[in-house]
Amino acid sequence: MDDYLIQRKQLIADDRALRIDHTAQRKIPDEEHQADKILGHIRSSEAESVWSATQPMKQLHGSQQLFPGMEFLTARETIVGTKLFDILSKMPKGGLLHAHHAAMVRVDVLLRLALSQPAVHIRVPAVLSLATIGTVLPEFRGLPRAEWTTHPSITDQRYAPDTWVPIQNARSNFSHALSGPEGFDRWFTNTMTINPSEAYGTHNTTGEIWKKFQSTFIAAQGLIFFEPISTEYIRELFDASIEDGISYVEIRMAFHQKYMTGADGERNVPHRVWLQLYDRVLEEVKADMKQQGREDEFVGSRIIYSILRIITPEEIEWYLEDCIAMKQEFPHLISGFDLVGHEDTLLPLIYYAEPLLRFVERQKELGIEIPFMFHAGETLGDGTVADMNLYDAILLGTKRIGHGFSLIKHPKLMQICREKDICVEERNTGMAPFGSLYIMRVQSLAQRLTGSMPMHPLPAVMNQGVHVALCSDDPAVFGNMGLTFDFYQVFVASEVKSLATLHELVWDSIRYSALDCEEKESAFGKLERRWNIFVRYILDTYGAEG
Amino acid sequence: MDDYLIQRKQLIADDRALRIDHTAQRKIPDEEHQADKILGHIRSSEAESVWSATQPMKQLHGSQQLFPGMEFLTARETIVGTKLFDILSKMPKGGLLHAHHAAMVRVDVLLRLALSQPAVHIRVPAVLSLATIGTVLPEFRGLPRAEWTTHPSITDQRYAPDTWVPIQNARSNFSHALSGPEGFDRWFTNTMTINPSEAYGTHNTTGEIWKKFQSTFIAAQGLIFFEPISTEYIRELFDASIEDGISYVEIRMAFHQKYMTGADGERNVPHRVWLQLYDRVLEEVKADMKQQGREDEFVGSRIIYSILRIITPEEIEWYLEDCIAMKQEFPHLISGFDLVGHEDTLLPLIYYAEPLLRFVERQKELGIEIPFMFHAGETLGDGTVADMNLYDAILLGTKRIGHGFSLIKHPKLMQICREKDICVEERNTGMAPFGSLYIMRVQSLAQRLTGSMPMHPLPAVMNQGVHVALCSDDPAVFGNMGLTFDFYQVFVASEVKSLATLHELVWDSIRYSALDCEEKESAFGKLERRWNIFVRYILDTYGAEG
Repeated sequence: MDDYLIQRKQLIADDRALRIDHTAQRKIPDEEHQADKILGHIRSSEAESVWSATQPMKQLHGSQQLFPGMEFLTARETIVGTKLFDILSKMPKGGLLHAHHAAMVRVDVLLRLALSQPAVHIRVPAVLSLATIGTVLPEFRGLPRAEWTTHPSITDQRYAPDTWVPIQNARSNFSHALSGPEGFDRWFTNTMTINPSEAYGTHNTTGEIWKKFQSTFIAAQGLIFFEPISTEYIRELFDASIEDGISYVEIRMAFHQKYMTGADGERNVPHRVWLQLYDRVLEEVKADMKQQGREDEFVGSRIIYSILRIITPEEIEWYLEDCIAMKQEFPHLISGFDLVGHEDTLLPLIYYAEPLLRFVERQKELGIEIPFMFHAGETLGDGTVADMNLYDAILLGTKRIGHGFSLIKHPKLMQICREKDICVEERNTGMAPFGSLYIMRVQSLAQRLTGSMPMHPLPAVMNQGVHVALCSDDPAVFGNMGLTFDFYQVFVASEVKSLATLHELVWDSIRYSALDCEEKESAFGKLERRWNIFVRYILDTYGAEG
Repeated sequence: MDDYLIQRKQLIADDRALRIDHTAQRKIPDEEHQADKILGHIRSSEAESVWSATQPMKQLHGSQQLFPGMEFLTARETIVGTKLFDILSKMPKGGLLHAHHAAMVRVDVLLRLALSQPAVHIRVPAVLSLATIGTVLPEFRGLPRAEWTTHPSITDQRYAPDTWVPIQNARSNFSHALSGPEGFDRWFTNTMTINPSEAYGTHNTTGEIWKKFQSTFIAAQGLIFFEPISTEYIRELFDASIEDGISYVEIRMAFHQKYMTGADGERNVPHRVWLQLYDRVLEEVKADMKQQGREDEFVGSRIIYSILRIITPEEIEWYLEDCIAMKQEFPHLISGFDLVGHEDTLLPLIYYAEPLLRFVERQKELGIEIPFMFHAGETLGDGTVADMNLYDAILLGTKRIGHGFSLIKHPKLMQICREKDICVEERNTGMAPFGSLYIMRVQSLAQRLTGSMPMHPLPAVMNQGVHVALCSDDPAVFGNMGLTFDFYQVFVASEVKSLATLHELVWDSIRYSALDCEEKESAFGKLERRWNIFVRYILDTYGAEG
């Protein structure tokens, strides 16, 4: 029996040898060991007190037992109330490497920004009433001064469909039958987000949820791409990330539209001005942080040039050239290239292989580097086009893989990820419908990939030695702002994940970023200081629970 | 670009090199190639015509799009109506290597058997009424002649709780308010099975569904372990398997109870008589098949001696000795040993390691072989006791792994499975709540492991070169009789699975069985003949669709 126990210990060690928390060379300080013990205790005790008790479930079916890996949108409130969540909200998160620009700011904040701009108007294709409010989608636009209107309302029977109404008027005069201004706010929120009954009920297939998901982007677009709002929006994006302990963000920005609407209401602001604007806000935020003595909390931001996978190989040429031009003008901002959109129904990478291979050649000639950061394998399919994207992403030399939900089915590709050090950007909370089954968001943000956390492939992929960067992806749509939810899910879903695992995930998020060596060194130094403060916080606040 | 396409082809081949349909040395005949094309066409066309159309969903939420990998219990009716299901129902399935004796016969058949025995009585702890019918569970027993009663009803207000009523009376006089005899049949069915609203609604956590699952076994026990019914039950088990194209069954029989109730109503029939009875029925069925000229359709059956993982290490000693005694008396029947029950809450393998190691030694001394066929890793947990069972199952030398749902998280263990040729018994249809996410039943029969098929780890495990035997597990409880549903799910869930994949799964089910070399050769010969007939059937019936 003694022999058996020795063999057993060895087998477990061998099996876990590829895990990041085992390959890390770091010597764990005593204080962190103590803090880890405390976290472990809290995890066990909350598993009992919070998740085992049968509680009425508000949103869905009659009653249902809550568990930490259940559908994110349903469990959200309960998660936020736990000690573990409180602790992890204080943890320095490192970098956020996969997040879409258009879904990064809380909807109530976006509404506030919109209401602050008198140029912003709204229109709907039909008078808004109890009968139409569930289906009619609004359009927003910052209009030139000459086109501003004084129309009073979009809920009045006299409203002529598709005419512009100042958003302030539309809100103030929102009909009583639809609950007045508060009703407006609620409707605005509903058009921009996905709620549990939609995610798990009415839109509960991959295709349906994608439709709703796209509609949220379309509705937000007229606001986010109005220059005065855009500036504030980016500032909010940085502020909210910093608030959650994120010190670096790599944003996938859609350059599909060639122009943004300027403050004068004219749609003529080109990509280079977008980047100037981004750069300016970034520098302002950095200066602010410095002034506040919080330099450790923010190291910067980069942009991944992204376009929708719906264009032709001919059309992509313009964007690839544009991407190169932007990289040449803003070498410190443009750090990658990606194709985005629903992989199951849009065009596969192989369709663009020729121009993309030429793009790589062009970069060599010009002596610049814009690594691919492809979305790939965000699907439940086996051998479908979306699944096959993984082969092309890797052959084209992708530096990271967006989601890679189906990667677990590909032993050779996982081996290549290990050998070439390709990192997977994983959502593991967010929404089941898009979500994954590893952990709540490892799910692919826009598909009904996994119903709940413990089914997500994340633990399996991590155990096979593939490095992972946790991501919020499209937080505004699902309300999973920041990365605290993701780290929470990773930690509660496993008995073998420790504070050391979280540490490696945080450090990996800088390691696999587009920062250069020097910047990384500096970022690690800052992280180290903050990590020590975090460990101290756990000991000081929850020391009695160890 | 040409280079790229060559590299791509090679990469895909390398990635799939471990798959059973790639490692198989078999030369695929032209006819099978044609049949495979036909199946592929039908899969695509039914993906469109059956699964893409939005249809009202009868049992659950308002409306929901059907898809082949959705919750099994909901999609069942639609699956049965497809051409693909029709074809696969004709396919020779080889062996069924993981199925529990107590959940193998359709509930209506079990009811017919019970009604045919005048000794069978029923009792309930409270008068059955509209108020109690949803919660009260019946108990059944074959009584000694002297204890037979003439009580008329269990729904009459004068019924004294817990008194025995002949089952015939209970059914005939079932109250009109509860729909009379038909209502009795429905109630009987409900107590023995799990329906979609229970599986996905009210009992939708692992713990809850296990409770309901156990209650179905408790209710059935008094019937299945009454000798006159038991005999017919085993005959039905063989007949139904043969009907589905299964030619060999390895049954996990629970020997937890030391005695069965005999025809005389006395509970004194020991294990050796159970096996005599099993053997007799087996020989009768074989003789029947021979007489009908259908010898190719049935090669035999074996038993895996199973006990519940709730006893102490002291108590297990008696069973291990009993198992050895049974093996010595019935060497052609007893072919393995297993511990069964909900892994997440019952005792782990490590708890029994000492007596199990001695059991192995004892076998060596006696020159007999009773391989372990352990249930392990039937869990969503990561590092939980159920997940850790995988280490012990493998260290103890298990020949196969029951379910191994969490195996995908363990790279070293998958490597050992490849090297030591350990096969995984996978459920992939059945019920999501227990089910798996590989494919509908690969799920672990008694847990809410996976909501729908494409999330099951089966494709991932198979792609990593681990051999899999598809299993029905507890078909009576969920209505997934036979293996046709499982093969259906495997085939529709993937674009890269072909008739050759199914062929390898079928052949593996004999390869990894407890049959000896000679028996396997003979079984393969029979399978080969039937496979050719099956291929011919596809060409003849659906040739026009190729």
